[in-house]
Amino acid sequence: MTTQEILQTAKAASVALSTLTTDQKNNALLAMADALEAAAPAVLAANGLDVEAARGSISSVMVDRLALNEARIAAMAQGIREVAALPDPVGRVLDTFVRPDGLSIRKVAVPVGVVAIIYESRPNVTSDAAALTIKSGNVCVLRGGKEAYRSAAAIVAAMRQGLQQAGLSPDMLHLIEDTSRASATELMQAEGLVDLLIPRGGAGLIRACVENATVPCIQTGTGICHIYVDKEADLAMALDIMDNAKMSRPSVCNAAEVCLVHEAVAADFLPRLHARLTDISREHTAELRLDSRAAAIIPGVPAGEVDFDTEFLDYTLAVGVVADVEQAITHIAAHSTHHSEAIVTQNEAVAARFTAAVDSAAVYVNASTRFTDGGEFGLGCEMGISTQKLHARGPMGLAELTTYKYIITGNGHTRG
Amino acid sequence: MTTQEILQTAKAASVALSTLTTDQKNNALLAMADALEAAAPAVLAANGLDVEAARGSISSVMVDRLALNEARIAAMAQGIREVAALPDPVGRVLDTFVRPDGLSIRKVAVPVGVVAIIYESRPNVTSDAAALTIKSGNVCVLRGGKEAYRSAAAIVAAMRQGLQQAGLSPDMLHLIEDTSRASATELMQAEGLVDLLIPRGGAGLIRACVENATVPCIQTGTGICHIYVDKEADLAMALDIMDNAKMSRPSVCNAAEVCLVHEAVAADFLPRLHARLTDISREHTAELRLDSRAAAIIPGVPAGEVDFDTEFLDYTLAVGVVADVEQAITHIAAHSTHHSEAIVTQNEAVAARFTAAVDSAAVYVNASTRFTDGGEFGLGCEMGISTQKLHARGPMGLAELTTYKYIITGNGHTRG
Repeated sequence: MTTQEILQTAKAASVALSTLTTDQKNNALLAMADALEAAAPAVLAANGLDVEAARGSISSVMVDRLALNEARIAAMAQGIREVAALPDPVGRVLDTFVRPDGLSIRKVAVPVGVVAIIYESRPNVTSDAAALTIKSGNVCVLRGGKEAYRSAAAIVAAMRQGLQQAGLSPDMLHLIEDTSRASATELMQAEGLVDLLIPRGGAGLIRACVENATVPCIQTGTGICHIYVDKEADLAMALDIMDNAKMSRPSVCNAAEVCLVHEAVAADFLPRLHARLTDISREHTAELRLDSRAAAIIPGVPAGEVDFDTEFLDYTLAVGVVADVEQAITHIAAHSTHHSEAIVTQNEAVAARFTAAVDSAAVYVNASTRFTDGGEFGLGCEMGISTQKLHARGPMGLAELTTYKYIITGNGHTRG
Repeated sequence: MTTQEILQTAKAASVALSTLTTDQKNNALLAMADALEAAAPAVLAANGLDVEAARGSISSVMVDRLALNEARIAAMAQGIREVAALPDPVGRVLDTFVRPDGLSIRKVAVPVGVVAIIYESRPNVTSDAAALTIKSGNVCVLRGGKEAYRSAAAIVAAMRQGLQQAGLSPDMLHLIEDTSRASATELMQAEGLVDLLIPRGGAGLIRACVENATVPCIQTGTGICHIYVDKEADLAMALDIMDNAKMSRPSVCNAAEVCLVHEAVAADFLPRLHARLTDISREHTAELRLDSRAAAIIPGVPAGEVDFDTEFLDYTLAVGVVADVEQAITHIAAHSTHHSEAIVTQNEAVAARFTAAVDSAAVYVNASTRFTDGGEFGLGCEMGISTQKLHARGPMGLAELTTYKYIITGNGHTRG
């Protein structure tokens, strides 16, 4: 089907989906999970072709994002089942008030309608996004990257089969067949057919959405995350946090890209940071890109200005020295993507100043930025991390995929 | 100042405003209200020039929106004081959770930053918007229509004086001096300077925002509101509701523009509707634009297709006959702006079907659409009626002008 035909079919399916019961939706999700596991051989075969084709043209970190195995498929199915177990976000009464004249007003959560997701190469996004979208009463339209198309098609085929096995229309879930840029633009401008567009991807995709989207859109995912090591930091703690935030999974958006160190502790902390992250006995070591003050203390690559505005998604860390927390705040305001930032300090007043002044979705005190995640926040699996301020900020779970309406009941009430 | 200079000044003021205490903000609002009342002679003189210039070039209904008098200025000041009396939306802890590993997560309401409002000729929007924006910790940038510029400039000058009298920077409130289309486009594309743009105006302005805005934007206000009179309606009640919804204040967005009548009661209801709305003893009478089935029952102007897609904002009503509630729902889905719709019926099942299937911000049972209003909903005065599904839907009060951030506190927590 053409993208336009898919969107028409999706819109037509949205009314029925929005009025399904919780049990109907949960049964559908469980059937989708079972069907996905049953289809593991086909999914792995398709994924093998994708990985084969991708190797060499994308970084090894990106290949890691793309590759599936039995365990990852089982984890995807488990993710779907966990979404089935979560409370239904639709129909929640968010507020009720009875006006002095007896007019009764209820604010009720309702599905958005058709949710389209543009994403890149991670196949688990396919199942996560489908589960969250359908559980929240929305029709799911997926548009994946071409390097993962065969994997996504196999996963979607299995999940559509699950929907049918549950007695529902498979048209509640679609994969756009066209993986060219044209289909992404078409989704961005499908007014009246796409109720919410969620781009999950790099800065280029987000930029294209900001410039071209005429449908409602939530920006996600680009994370230039900072960790500020204060002069009153526990330096051993700072070292552990920095190591975790940079090295535990550098390909994800909540990984840290920048370390800012208070000048009073730079001479103490930076050599320890260098020793820790470049230790050749580790599986991976980091490349440090240093501003001039850091470069005066430890060896590394001199940073160009772009290094403090880059989401490396790799074992690379920009390191700078700042005069105090205010300079750290100013630097973050100028360079952050407003995703996640952390301060390491034992001084509560400094911590409070940092959390109040840093305008990001998640602001940490003495913890790794890696916790910015729907699962870690207890939302079940997530649709992405919103880096914008409207509607949803930070990890987006089920509630963030609903809107609301007011239902007002009177008895012939007119306004005086 | 140029628009760009104003926006730079506004952005610079936003950090200080976002950290004001509730008392500081309330004192500022009370001083603004006092200053506005004290400036009434200057405001009325400026408004008189605006009204003089506008008369003849805009409809009498629009002149009514523009014109001020002592009572309306007192009402504006009172509106500001009512906002001061409302709870502070900033700093509310929206959620807290402690993860099994002891990580403490708080979801806290914070200001958006700089809020820009593009509006047209109603001077009371100037004071309402300023009060709500400042109370919610945001810098307010107003861009009014040229026909109300002198009024708005006088009102803003008074309120800035109030801010200074309260010991605060007047730069928390700005009026864009350029009233040409260029300044509106500049606001729509002021990325990094405008955190939220709220267009309050007609379909043309909303369309321009959808097509041109690259900053986050909330669509407001266009209301093609429907009232469906079911076959099981109390027809006397339906008549009162229709009269109220159409005739009590046709220039506002929650006024009804379309009446749909079940065919089983059309022959009974429509003559009564015609008699009521065209009664020459009333101050104003309505012009009815009839579909062919309605035209077979009562006299009136034959409706063109455009009459069912027009926000008349005047004493004009499109009238159609439908086969049943499903056809009413389908008609509303095709023609509504998703603002407010009502059903009049004594049948609870039909009412439930209507409220579930109609995808609008406010859906009424046996009440007038005129209640869709921040004041009527108990929000204090309002910033507008959102007709979109993201972030805010329906009347926008203080809470809808905030976003949130997660503040996470650990003790050296790293992610395994």
